[in-house]
Amino acid sequence: MNYLTYLPVFDKLTKSQQDTLTHSAYVRKFNQKELLHNGSQDCMGLLLVLSGQLRAFTISDDGREITIYRLFERDICLFSASCIMNSIQFDIAITAEKDTEVLIIPSEVYKNIMEVSAPLANYTNEVMADRFSDVMWLINQVMWKSFDKRLADFLLNEANIEGSNTLKITHETIGNHLGSPREVVTRMLKYFVNEGLIALSRGTIVIIDKKGLEKIINR
Amino acid sequence: MNYLTYLPVFDKLTKSQQDTLTHSAYVRKFNQKELLHNGSQDCMGLLLVLSGQLRAFTISDDGREITIYRLFERDICLFSASCIMNSIQFDIAITAEKDTEVLIIPSEVYKNIMEVSAPLANYTNEVMADRFSDVMWLINQVMWKSFDKRLADFLLNEANIEGSNTLKITHETIGNHLGSPREVVTRMLKYFVNEGLIALSRGTIVIIDKKGLEKIINR
Repeated sequence: MNYLTYLPVFDKLTKSQQDTLTHSAYVRKFNQKELLHNGSQDCMGLLLVLSGQLRAFTISDDGREITIYRLFERDICLFSASCIMNSIQFDIAITAEKDTEVLIIPSEVYKNIMEVSAPLANYTNEVMADRFSDVMWLINQVMWKSFDKRLADFLLNEANIEGSNTLKITHETIGNHLGSPREVVTRMLKYFVNEGLIALSRGTIVIIDKKGLEKIINR
Repeated sequence: MNYLTYLPVFDKLTKSQQDTLTHSAYVRKFNQKELLHNGSQDCMGLLLVLSGQLRAFTISDDGREITIYRLFERDICLFSASCIMNSIQFDIAITAEKDTEVLIIPSEVYKNIMEVSAPLANYTNEVMADRFSDVMWLINQVMWKSFDKRLADFLLNEANIEGSNTLKITHETIGNHLGSPREVVTRMLKYFVNEGLIALSRGTIVIIDKKGLEKIINR
């Protein structure tokens, strides 16, 4: 199985470009919570997710985090190969949220083909525009949405990703996703408990009233 | 004068591509405060700034604004041509901050060439990565920086753009740049006055102590 066929643009490359990619790409496994990439000094390559789940986030000078986007099966991460473009002037960190298998395409190999291949360059454009849309969504969230809406949205999204109404997640981890202190998360979760929307137990959040959480998002 | 030569990639296009661009591009003038573009329903083309200054911003459901980035002479705006990429799933508005002259490259013309031209597609990538860096900077600002630092940074940046320590700008306009209510801006400006950093008069802010403002940013 050549995982590179996951790239929608693979069959638009020349045979020689396909071969170069195929021979240089390699599979690597990361354990849950492992840090795959940290900032622009490191440029290991593009990551094509084969299984598992990645989280891209940014970190403040004093260590606070906020999730920028997440990657699932068949998604590709460009910013772990930020050296392929001069204009990428920011740092992103990437961790495995679950045990994750990725196909790594070395930066230099990808860059050399992208420079001469309009299909690959245009594909790269679409991937970046996709992430750009995620970031614009995030700006609108943090600027204009109150924290109750953001937390309700996060919980429903998690339930959707996990396919379960029982979420094993700490208040601190939620804070790191949303860029908020743990205490703020705990306070709002307790409010949701009082409203009968969720139940809390040690390390677990159970969603009881999905419609109620949706109402908060849309009110 | 063919303004398209402002595109660093113009001489890497074929003669026929150069001619197509040259014949379809046209100059248009916008008055200060005029809205050039509003959201994704409108796709007039790429804007190459010939003179003046543009502001790209996003608007909340209830009309609040925050500046995403600004464009100066020889900068190019992609998002006024968001239909050239499927994955641009967000709305940006663009206004002229000064009387502005732009070269408009129609979206369809640009898109058709980009699809077959690796140089143009890679140039587009670099432009998008550049804007992406602006947006990541903005996220880090709004998430982790206190408002005094953001306002001090904004004032010094304005003085730099205008080449003057006297800024003709209302508190409301500053609020629209920073995504903050006018009253919050006014309160912080008064604090800066008390600290001897600036002076206020009707519609004008005079920067008195640049070093002091820099100290706020870095404290």
